[in-house]
Amino acid sequence: MSTNSSGPRQQLGTEHIHTVWDCSLPPTLHVATGAEIELQTLDASYGGVARQVQEGKLACPEALRDVVLASAYAVRPNTAGQPGHPLTGPIFVEGAQPGDTLQVDLLEVGTGAWGWNACRPGGIGLLDDEVPEAHTQFWDLRGGAWTDFLDVARVPLAPFPGLIGVALSEPGQHKTAPPRRVGGNMDVRQLTAGSTLFLPVEVEGALLSVGDMHAAQGDGEVSGTGIETDGRLTLRVQVLKNQPVGTPHLQTGPEPTDLWSAGAYVTTGHAPDLREAARIALRELVTYMGRRHGLSFVQAYVLASACVDLRISQLVDAPNFTVSALLPNRIFAR
Amino acid sequence: MSTNSSGPRQQLGTEHIHTVWDCSLPPTLHVATGAEIELQTLDASYGGVARQVQEGKLACPEALRDVVLASAYAVRPNTAGQPGHPLTGPIFVEGAQPGDTLQVDLLEVGTGAWGWNACRPGGIGLLDDEVPEAHTQFWDLRGGAWTDFLDVARVPLAPFPGLIGVALSEPGQHKTAPPRRVGGNMDVRQLTAGSTLFLPVEVEGALLSVGDMHAAQGDGEVSGTGIETDGRLTLRVQVLKNQPVGTPHLQTGPEPTDLWSAGAYVTTGHAPDLREAARIALRELVTYMGRRHGLSFVQAYVLASACVDLRISQLVDAPNFTVSALLPNRIFAR
Repeated sequence: MSTNSSGPRQQLGTEHIHTVWDCSLPPTLHVATGAEIELQTLDASYGGVARQVQEGKLACPEALRDVVLASAYAVRPNTAGQPGHPLTGPIFVEGAQPGDTLQVDLLEVGTGAWGWNACRPGGIGLLDDEVPEAHTQFWDLRGGAWTDFLDVARVPLAPFPGLIGVALSEPGQHKTAPPRRVGGNMDVRQLTAGSTLFLPVEVEGALLSVGDMHAAQGDGEVSGTGIETDGRLTLRVQVLKNQPVGTPHLQTGPEPTDLWSAGAYVTTGHAPDLREAARIALRELVTYMGRRHGLSFVQAYVLASACVDLRISQLVDAPNFTVSALLPNRIFAR
Repeated sequence: MSTNSSGPRQQLGTEHIHTVWDCSLPPTLHVATGAEIELQTLDASYGGVARQVQEGKLACPEALRDVVLASAYAVRPNTAGQPGHPLTGPIFVEGAQPGDTLQVDLLEVGTGAWGWNACRPGGIGLLDDEVPEAHTQFWDLRGGAWTDFLDVARVPLAPFPGLIGVALSEPGQHKTAPPRRVGGNMDVRQLTAGSTLFLPVEVEGALLSVGDMHAAQGDGEVSGTGIETDGRLTLRVQVLKNQPVGTPHLQTGPEPTDLWSAGAYVTTGHAPDLREAARIALRELVTYMGRRHGLSFVQAYVLASACVDLRISQLVDAPNFTVSALLPNRIFAR
């Protein structure tokens, strides 16, 4: 088994994106175990937001909102075969066999210059049935360390790929929206640079794909979007024998930012269903943010999607279980 | 409205515990807004574990396990009128009216000398249907800063009252097990010393009660118990007008320990139901802890209940939602 990690880094651009999971897709890259790969990803608007910015249309929020509403974000609940998230890959890793584990070290993770997040009535977000109007928020990521939210807050950047996984063994096309036992659209915000992901291999070569970079996101992704952006990653892949995982595991470093260093304002929800408990806690928090920080419902909601954590405080005190929503105080320290 | 916080602290012991919520219970203490109160609480074994230790029976785990299995922990799923958690209170706060908010500053929070947590087949824990045998773990809390788990790990102490709330307006007896819109058995681990709780008042005087001290607990309390212990708290209570909350809110400081400073080993679960996603993630993690750290299922499970966080990574990527279980690496640094 080769572990040639000293060779040149292989490159993978966005020329050959795919938008469904399908183990019959031809690989766009073959690498040995131990290889390092530099790759680029498109955001859920298929790069539409970045193009509009390049064309000088950033001053026209309506045009940008149309791009977002026509994007994978808007269509991703649809059936297989219709557009899903744009994914970079698949990458065939030599020596990977069903039953193995694919170790993926995230060496470098970067964003595009601009990001967005959004909500809309009837969308996928946790409170989208209560959203009064569609809203798209644009975020300037060029500072690198943090991004301003109006003149109210600044959110530290902690970019991670929202979507990373390997092919399912089941033949046919599978939607990109749901994550599965092989990973995919997990939106696990802890998967920042320096972390390591372990994925269960189901097909020869593993067939790794990556996409949906988020510049920041809270645990929950409550409005249905993190701060969506184009991305660039450097990964190292390695095949592990005899270290099986049943679902994706990861090893993280410390929190990459000081987001939680000043504590949190916390709201709680208590209900027999964890999702309903989360809705109660989030509704309380969005209402509080509006009153305390002068934000509209949709402004508070998309800001929460970028930085509010949903924690399961307890799921043992039947009949009511508790979800807490944590708003980091640090974002308001200017 | 008086804010006499400079008066002598009032004391409240465990002579008059109550074990149900009932707004007709006579208050055990009347205080003015702004008052500071020093109070003591019994653990969910009604102090049985502490008594056994005093009587020199700590060397007899079977006797202690019997105490635990006869405790509120074991019976708390039962109907109102049967024993629930032992609560200290109720405290009548002068001037508190329905619609007000009761602010509770947690000035000091301390534990007893010994703690325990447990699991048992058919119990309330998340994986209790998979538990092969009953297990009770005892924790020596006398060090104050951390507590050893066998010779495998050490868990930093971050004590908080698992149960704190005010009386419901609905007459009659209400079980202590479930938390409700007025608080109660919330098990929100962020409620450590230095934090402030905001509770919605439903009856005149608020009728605050407190109990179920936990020396440490992860978000989730996955086996059904934190590190259960007797407690002592110093609280300051204050009535707020025109600052309504719909459920308990809190303001926290930074994480009180360095528990997360070395990152985490994370497992993920993906399922249409958040509880099932949590079960998958936890089962993966308990299995990993067994293999990696040489622990039995029940050992790993009760250790997880003391320090593993359940985070909702996303609840928007239908049909599968993601819960991540985070095991802090720091506990293994000896």
